[in-house]
Amino acid sequence: MRAIVLEGSDVSFRTDNPPPVAADGEVIVRVLRAGICETDLQLMRGYMGFRGVLGHEFVGIAEAGLYAGQRVVGEINCSCWRCGTCAAGRPTHCPNRTTIGIDRHDGAFAEFIAVPQRNLHRVPDPVPTDAAVFTEPLAAAFQIPAQLTVNRTDRVVVLGDGRLGNLCAQVLAGISDRVILIGKHPEKLALLNALGIGTALVGDLQANVAGGIDRADLVVDCTGSETGLPTALQLVRPRGTIVLKTTVAGSQQMPWAPVVIDEVTIVGSRCGPFDRALAALDAGSISVLPLISRRFDLSQGIQALEAARSGGALKVLLDVASP
Amino acid sequence: MRAIVLEGSDVSFRTDNPPPVAADGEVIVRVLRAGICETDLQLMRGYMGFRGVLGHEFVGIAEAGLYAGQRVVGEINCSCWRCGTCAAGRPTHCPNRTTIGIDRHDGAFAEFIAVPQRNLHRVPDPVPTDAAVFTEPLAAAFQIPAQLTVNRTDRVVVLGDGRLGNLCAQVLAGISDRVILIGKHPEKLALLNALGIGTALVGDLQANVAGGIDRADLVVDCTGSETGLPTALQLVRPRGTIVLKTTVAGSQQMPWAPVVIDEVTIVGSRCGPFDRALAALDAGSISVLPLISRRFDLSQGIQALEAARSGGALKVLLDVASP
Repeated sequence: MRAIVLEGSDVSFRTDNPPPVAADGEVIVRVLRAGICETDLQLMRGYMGFRGVLGHEFVGIAEAGLYAGQRVVGEINCSCWRCGTCAAGRPTHCPNRTTIGIDRHDGAFAEFIAVPQRNLHRVPDPVPTDAAVFTEPLAAAFQIPAQLTVNRTDRVVVLGDGRLGNLCAQVLAGISDRVILIGKHPEKLALLNALGIGTALVGDLQANVAGGIDRADLVVDCTGSETGLPTALQLVRPRGTIVLKTTVAGSQQMPWAPVVIDEVTIVGSRCGPFDRALAALDAGSISVLPLISRRFDLSQGIQALEAARSGGALKVLLDVASP
Repeated sequence: MRAIVLEGSDVSFRTDNPPPVAADGEVIVRVLRAGICETDLQLMRGYMGFRGVLGHEFVGIAEAGLYAGQRVVGEINCSCWRCGTCAAGRPTHCPNRTTIGIDRHDGAFAEFIAVPQRNLHRVPDPVPTDAAVFTEPLAAAFQIPAQLTVNRTDRVVVLGDGRLGNLCAQVLAGISDRVILIGKHPEKLALLNALGIGTALVGDLQANVAGGIDRADLVVDCTGSETGLPTALQLVRPRGTIVLKTTVAGSQQMPWAPVVIDEVTIVGSRCGPFDRALAALDAGSISVLPLISRRFDLSQGIQALEAARSGGALKVLLDVASP
């Protein structure tokens, strides 16, 4: 089958990749659409040492199982459901897990993908396929209110105007009246302004901090950069919370005393609830289609990855098949 | 009056230091006993750029005010009680605060100290002065259960067998049945073993981690070292919590991806509730007297600081006056 395959630092489009075989409990899904994520670009730089078919944001048609013939999306953590961590209700942290398109499990930049049945969610009919492909990153945004209580009057700052920052700002603006997103790209900020969400350019922000702006109750780092956390520490109030959403390969230098002196809480945050994301897409309460900046056929996947790597793109989609 | 004074990197014993003058709302306290804290040693290395009389752990006799003639201890944050942060119930984070013996407020290594009346707590009669001098660090240990819920079955690891690690382990062992303290000094671990609290040497710990020991729900870093946090990240379970208790000057290199992947929560923790600490000392539920390793007269304060700096000492006391 056709697939985009990563081998070491070499990524290529292949027409002869062997199709996946469904393991016990797995279902073959015929992929319709896939999205390129920052994590895919990190994997190409060696993160996780992944080898195989890339891609973990997808919509497809289940070939068998509970949703045979229907459109589905799939959670990416393939858990064992037998260990103590799974039993404790934390299957996304299962020590025996593989992760679709990220860790020892072939991904979705291909005609077919094998997915555990219990990872699949049916896509509601009114949700377009182009919108449903955002389920995985939108679920990651909904993980923030799943992990901590956000109040209507909380001052919230989201750092980073990329795909994930946009989605986190939209999710949090559904809870708090005081959300502001800080970014570097006026055209990306304009997408949020059109939804009534406040934004600022990072340069203006520094001036505000120097001017003694009230610090935030919650800062969400979606910068994908080593500088995100130190910036977040400047912006959060004493006893406030910083949520880290982006996985940055490598290490970073940071002063620790402010975390202790200001009694700041730092919360790592990863995959989230697909059901909440699908319900929001079904209700139309989150705007995702304006985030699509370019689309490519699967056979042009290498060019698609290049386009995603260039700073300007928000979401780049791969058309794999038509329903 | 006699006092231990820090000027730049120079610390000296003086007999002619001007006595403090009580500002509005302040009371003069005649110091009986003071304790040397790791923070004092950090201040001598330039932390906070402090100049003035050192010392923030003390017991004294109030010369005036509500507790005139009685033994008192004092909270160290001198807050304005007028700003939004104080109004929000976070006076220890008041942006206008000074801090006794740490930041623009003369400390307790002296015959007299000026303390805001509302910072003072009366020492219950049954609590010896030598025990009451532990109120401030013990309150810092009680800040952990004040900030987060600890359950009886939570697996808790305290890193560091110094003064603060010992007190944190004792406080947490009053809540959880599964507390273990990891340290480097068998004689310091023995103090906890005598109280029925489990301990391990850090070398044995590494072997256990390699052997796949169950990771902890809560790890408390009291190492006072840059290596504490990376070690804590190895020991904490996914979605577990790390509490940072020690302020380390300077910055440190750390890999961030594990915090996000494992959705770890990191909580900075500082000053705590004096009332809970005094109640525990009154009830005899925390053992502090065995932590006293040496005592010096105030006039020998420089030698006392040297003794505290040597790795072996737990708590070094200064005798300032008799009641």
